[in-house]
Amino acid sequence: MHFTITKAGEIPRFETLGVRREGAVGFARIAAPPMNLLGPELVRDLVSLIQWAEADDALQVMVFQSADPDYFISHVDVTRIKEYREEAAKLTGEASIASLFRHLSASRLVSIAQIEGRVRGAGSEFVLACDMRFAALESAIFSQPEQAFGAIPGAGGVQHLTRLLGRGRALEVILSAEDYDAELAERYGWINRALPASSLGDFVRSLAERIAGFPKAGHVSVKERINAISLAPADDFRRDSDLFGEGLRTPEAQSRIDAAVKRGFQTRESEMDLARLLGDRSDGRTLGS
Amino acid sequence: MHFTITKAGEIPRFETLGVRREGAVGFARIAAPPMNLLGPELVRDLVSLIQWAEADDALQVMVFQSADPDYFISHVDVTRIKEYREEAAKLTGEASIASLFRHLSASRLVSIAQIEGRVRGAGSEFVLACDMRFAALESAIFSQPEQAFGAIPGAGGVQHLTRLLGRGRALEVILSAEDYDAELAERYGWINRALPASSLGDFVRSLAERIAGFPKAGHVSVKERINAISLAPADDFRRDSDLFGEGLRTPEAQSRIDAAVKRGFQTRESEMDLARLLGDRSDGRTLGS
Amino acid sequence: MHFTITKAGEIPRFETLGVRREGAVGFARIAAPPMNLLGPELVRDLVSLIQWAEADDALQVMVFQSADPDYFISHVDVTRIKEYREEAAKLTGEASIASLFRHLSASRLVSIAQIEGRVRGAGSEFVLACDMRFAALESAIFSQPEQAFGAIPGAGGVQHLTRLLGRGRALEVILSAEDYDAELAERYGWINRALPASSLGDFVRSLAERIAGFPKAGHVSVKERINAISLAPADDFRRDSDLFGEGLRTPEAQSRIDAAVKRGFQTRESEMDLARLLGDRSDGRTLGS
Repeated sequence: MHFTITKAGEIPRFETLGVRREGAVGFARIAAPPMNLLGPELVRDLVSLIQWAEADDALQVMVFQSADPDYFISHVDVTRIKEYREEAAKLTGEASIASLFRHLSASRLVSIAQIEGRVRGAGSEFVLACDMRFAALESAIFSQPEQAFGAIPGAGGVQHLTRLLGRGRALEVILSAEDYDAELAERYGWINRALPASSLGDFVRSLAERIAGFPKAGHVSVKERINAISLAPADDFRRDSDLFGEGLRTPEAQSRIDAAVKRGFQTRESEMDLARLLGDRSDGRTLGS
Repeated sequence: MHFTITKAGEIPRFETLGVRREGAVGFARIAAPPMNLLGPELVRDLVSLIQWAEADDALQVMVFQSADPDYFISHVDVTRIKEYREEAAKLTGEASIASLFRHLSASRLVSIAQIEGRVRGAGSEFVLACDMRFAALESAIFSQPEQAFGAIPGAGGVQHLTRLLGRGRALEVILSAEDYDAELAERYGWINRALPASSLGDFVRSLAERIAGFPKAGHVSVKERINAISLAPADDFRRDSDLFGEGLRTPEAQSRIDAAVKRGFQTRESEMDLARLLGDRSDGRTLGS
Repeated sequence: MHFTITKAGEIPRFETLGVRREGAVGFARIAAPPMNLLGPELVRDLVSLIQWAEADDALQVMVFQSADPDYFISHVDVTRIKEYREEAAKLTGEASIASLFRHLSASRLVSIAQIEGRVRGAGSEFVLACDMRFAALESAIFSQPEQAFGAIPGAGGVQHLTRLLGRGRALEVILSAEDYDAELAERYGWINRALPASSLGDFVRSLAERIAGFPKAGHVSVKERINAISLAPADDFRRDSDLFGEGLRTPEAQSRIDAAVKRGFQTRESEMDLARLLGDRSDGRTLGS
């Protein structure tokens, strides 16, 4: 394990996660400045967090939050794919965050995403891997931007979105690489519900405490039966992960990523409106031209 | 069969169902005071009703209603599980209401639930087994409360809700054991539509008559093709039914049921707000403590 | 191929489709007066259009529109089933529009339906076969009317609607043969979104251009992965197509079609309110009596 617990029951410290615990509910606040990119450090800490939480039999529910009001998880750091994949392998034996996220879905832990700010790419796929997703009406933004570079979502997005949204809406959101606000994300089934930011925290805490108060054997049983129907086979996650990697390694993808970087891709300020950045033709050219 | 028809075409009398017929449409009004619990009598009558209706070739559509404005079907009588299961076996050969409900879904009869009041647990599962569900905006309340005791829904709720609501919302409603009003139930896909109580009856009657006027061979064909895609295999219903029974037989479940009974579980008045009863910690303890 | 291109890149002319092209996006406007019935001519032209579009490597997205504000595609011409099926066979080798439509779903081309007016029966099934569907709030109307005659939808409607709407809503819309407006079609998941007619065209064009600007290899990959989950097997489309034909050939169906024709079925004016025509009992009789 990648953390040290000095006293029994003590909460380990993580570089990119602020973790606290209230009874059977854990809260993990993502804090990976400047924009909560999913890089090796955050993956390492997520792996450690899951190991710690699963090892603690009294912990039933994990709530994920963000310390950055504009970014929950922006997306993967495309310059460090190999590194973060190696971190993921420390939990699952597979160098893939698809496999890490699927582990969370299959875990005995109940996971709830409390979403403020942007969740794009692997950020969206992380919250899709959580058991439930509640988002702030005013600030949450959802996107799978991979196809702007010619890749498919590689960490479960295809699997979850197709099942949740249906064929037409899944094709729309993945082919368009557009931003979707919380209201539309709710209508499409991307999230459970959109709530006013002012009530989101209390709602999630109350729900988490309620669930945590019910028998843990039941959590396992309910998750097993629902996952048996709705969680895609591990091989489909693997295949998507491989296709994502292959897609990004093509010269066309590399050239489009370079063009996007020139426009500010992977910077906090420019990604506030990533959808426009990816699709903009106002300067007479697209990413691909 | 568990009813007697003295004259050809005459409608049998049931202890807990008020049945009338208008042309090719039958109406069954559930009346099992004090709170429409699903016990042996109501299961016995549902079995008889289905036998009678299926035997009558001129009957095409069955509408289910409630005589109690506050309860459609509250849930199973947890003190009489063995007894009501034996009644269900008289239709399907299997001592399980999951099997009874699935029989209704697969029947040549078109079934429509007109929901006013509470449908919780097996009540929710009964309306999910119907081919369509329309609910009164003002009064209908939906819940799968089983996990408050550590059990999964055992009469098809996991199968239907996961397919209708998707993984995230199905996990939410089943793990939380919360009450959902008709508006949210519609948004989640639990029901077809929520309608004002003042127009619900006319809407359902008109829809039932319209459908009943179309060819009965078509009803069978449509239901077969849609069920082939969306109705879970009988074995999955059986497995859920077994898990429900196993879950409720644990000492933890028994202790939580006892604690709930002390708070008024299975009484008409206290179950008006069952969600609170199950999750309340205001007296310093939960059902489990 | 059933069209002639005189110069490289020139757009062929079609009797029932007005086709134009803007960069990587093609626009096909359905114009088959008096009511955009799907007969042999329109099927022939759709086959040719797909062949032309798929052969042109620079074309990425096809947008389908209607020249008739009241009818997008009304439904098949029930008097010419054999003929239009033979036209469909020229693309797929199978005498079935189910197979033609499924070809479009599986195509490398991204297809978007921009729906104004009525889409019933095979019209609905055509837009369901498109990758995305956006409809005018004021004018779009959706229906699968087949069961009014005792047939199932035969061109993919059962497959798509059951997966998109879920069991209850799919049973409702198919068993009722009712009209659904765009707002309800959106709530049910029949379409991606309903938009005001005044903004629909710009929205669709902008989305089409955005998608067309992304790498074409990615379109193929995304569609393959999403179709692997959500597009029903060809055999299920074939079976539905056969059942549709069998259903319509029964004496009961023929008699009901005759009765509907007497009420104006397959005429522009009377089909403005087809749902009423099919279900009306105000003259003391239904189609079946």
